[in-house]
Amino acid sequence: MTEIEIRVGLKPGMADPEGANVQKALRLLGFDSVGAVASARCYRVTLELPETEALAEAERMCRHLLANPVVHDYSITVAE
Amino acid sequence: MTEIEIRVGLKPGMADPEGANVQKALRLLGFDSVGAVASARCYRVTLELPETEALAEAERMCRHLLANPVVHDYSITVAE
Repeated sequence: MTEIEIRVGLKPGMADPEGANVQKALRLLGFDSVGAVASARCYRVTLELPETEALAEAERMCRHLLANPVVHDYSITVAE
Repeated sequence: MTEIEIRVGLKPGMADPEGANVQKALRLLGFDSVGAVASARCYRVTLELPETEALAEAERMCRHLLANPVVHDYSITVAE
């Protein structure tokens, strides 16, 4: 059994209204050191597979369902 | 300048309809080894601070804005 963390973010240059709003809100709250904020969706998926196969399966999940290659970048890691 | 990754997930036992729907969709697509799926929001925040101070500032951001302590767990890491 392997726990995989999949992070689906936006490609550089794609509009990210959630990130922009978080940035604005943080600055209004006085967090003056805040620069860019980028939002992403993360999925923690438990797979009944050993690590190597789980990583390959997660890659297929991203290609088939979780990420849209036109707008999304994704990364896959084994969760600690 | 430090890039911080903030992950805001749901506390155990909180309803996670997005995670449940992703799980259902993956199984319908034939990913039979999928067990639990938990969704989370992630924020990549750039801070004009050295690493230690940036981590402390991110902790404050979570407490003041990004996470609701009633329903959310969060984790903060320095992004690679």
